[in-house]
Amino acid sequence: MSIRIGIYGYGNLGRGVESAIRQNPDLELCAVFTRRAPETLKIKTEGVPVYHVDKAPELVNDIDVMILCGGSATDLPVQTPALVKYFNVVDSFDTHARIPEHFANVDESAKESGKVGIISCGWDPGMFSLNRLYASAILPQGKDYTFWGKGVSQGHSDAIRRIEGVLDAKQYTIPVDSALEAVRSGTNPELSTREKHIRECFVVAEEGADKARIENEIKTMPNYFADYDTTVHFITLEELKRDHGGIPHGGFVIRSGKTGFDSENSHIIEYSLKLDSNPEFTASVIVAYARAAYRLNKEGASGCKTVFDIAPAYLSMSTPEELRAKLL
Amino acid sequence: MSIRIGIYGYGNLGRGVESAIRQNPDLELCAVFTRRAPETLKIKTEGVPVYHVDKAPELVNDIDVMILCGGSATDLPVQTPALVKYFNVVDSFDTHARIPEHFANVDESAKESGKVGIISCGWDPGMFSLNRLYASAILPQGKDYTFWGKGVSQGHSDAIRRIEGVLDAKQYTIPVDSALEAVRSGTNPELSTREKHIRECFVVAEEGADKARIENEIKTMPNYFADYDTTVHFITLEELKRDHGGIPHGGFVIRSGKTGFDSENSHIIEYSLKLDSNPEFTASVIVAYARAAYRLNKEGASGCKTVFDIAPAYLSMSTPEELRAKLL
Repeated sequence: MSIRIGIYGYGNLGRGVESAIRQNPDLELCAVFTRRAPETLKIKTEGVPVYHVDKAPELVNDIDVMILCGGSATDLPVQTPALVKYFNVVDSFDTHARIPEHFANVDESAKESGKVGIISCGWDPGMFSLNRLYASAILPQGKDYTFWGKGVSQGHSDAIRRIEGVLDAKQYTIPVDSALEAVRSGTNPELSTREKHIRECFVVAEEGADKARIENEIKTMPNYFADYDTTVHFITLEELKRDHGGIPHGGFVIRSGKTGFDSENSHIIEYSLKLDSNPEFTASVIVAYARAAYRLNKEGASGCKTVFDIAPAYLSMSTPEELRAKLL
Repeated sequence: MSIRIGIYGYGNLGRGVESAIRQNPDLELCAVFTRRAPETLKIKTEGVPVYHVDKAPELVNDIDVMILCGGSATDLPVQTPALVKYFNVVDSFDTHARIPEHFANVDESAKESGKVGIISCGWDPGMFSLNRLYASAILPQGKDYTFWGKGVSQGHSDAIRRIEGVLDAKQYTIPVDSALEAVRSGTNPELSTREKHIRECFVVAEEGADKARIENEIKTMPNYFADYDTTVHFITLEELKRDHGGIPHGGFVIRSGKTGFDSENSHIIEYSLKLDSNPEFTASVIVAYARAAYRLNKEGASGCKTVFDIAPAYLSMSTPEELRAKLL
């Protein structure tokens, strides 16, 4: 019998989950939930019903795991604790500073309902976090570095779009090659924000807009750009659509550490991702953890979990015997 | 209270475990066991007793986790099932083809004794296995590749040393750059053994030995060298000691996969290690899993486990709260 999945929120991430489910024959998409009028939503999977979010609690017996595809700012802090009262859930909550608070809220609800809630799934938080943990546990005498990119930062692109005179924009975060090489060399450099990443912006300005002012507003924007070397390119809307339509991303987690009685040996552990589609990859991670949520709950577990709490074998379609024979 | 560790077998790996324990303040080395006459063994940690292996069962109440540092060919298949009758144990059994059989033997003994036995810890099997599992669970429509090196292969170096006229030798396994690049490009190439790795040998010949014959015997040796492009360099014993004294190793696990309704997006997940000392890094992995063995057993778990069965948080000195706040 398949694991019955619901998708709660149907934007880029929800569509990514829908396509990821097709690659996992033990999972079945059972329903999509939206805040829009359900009849206006056209999904890609034939025969799967679309419901208004208010109807979710009525489907408590029809869905094994609800995948929450809302945003971290306002949706998930409310939705995840609310939905885990009815379902096992997985979310991709990514506001790092608020994870302890979100964990506590989800944990309380999930323990009451006897369900499993896995939070902060994706690649950062998610696979990058896992790699920071494994590498620091193995090489306690060391230092880790996370680099992001090359990829599109949605938040930074949005910030540019809010500037007066800007029609549209795409912002790429790019790790600095020389910083990556310094880390890989094992010298454990101290790197400032500016030394680790550069920001490249492709901006479509309104006709007659003051481009010098726009460029200056971008480069001096606190938190977003002021601490970085930022380059701004003005392009046409056609160029933006043609050359910058994708949502690629990726990055690197590198730990450099020492071993030996005199710390005489150096080791580099590096994990990297190069992703054509950030939301589809995030969705693929979430879907693997949806399998884990189902299995853990079947075994009697409840409460909030993160990628740190889940044994890797729970993610795989293969049996433990197959995993030991083929992948170990 | 510290977790009390025993080291069973004191070669390169045992010494690596001894030095790794010093980096983990929650672990304490309590005893070293050897098949040699104990009084002939000089270890690096003052005040820690050295016992003959026969004495191990008498220390059942003094050691929380016994780390087995013997070889996979003949030691571990016997030692791990025998020792797990008394202690939680961790080994680095690395004969991939015999893992299912070893697992079954250890599992039976461990379930009888109520202890935890973690087998096949290290980097391959070990961290590489984990990365194969995570990556294949996330990107089911894909292909994974493991490359080893650049590093010293002990087995291949030994095989050369057995050739008549050879005094000493060191063999390096080196991944082929163009193969790595082809994999990273996402084209999912089919690669033959010869296309993935080359083998470079540094050989010290006896005076007057027939070097042409030795080189030919190496290059045509079945299983070890015949399927590879192999280069042989004859050097002096002094050069071997000066330039090839280390035991570096490393490698790459790369998964290339597709997502999207039409498989239109490509993703590359890459994990790599660059290690100055193969045994010290392996020991560092083992020591983190010794912590996990202790904690799992405290929680009531017993039986044989592998890296696939152990939630990452068990490996870390930090508390779950600290991990969520700092690494997630």
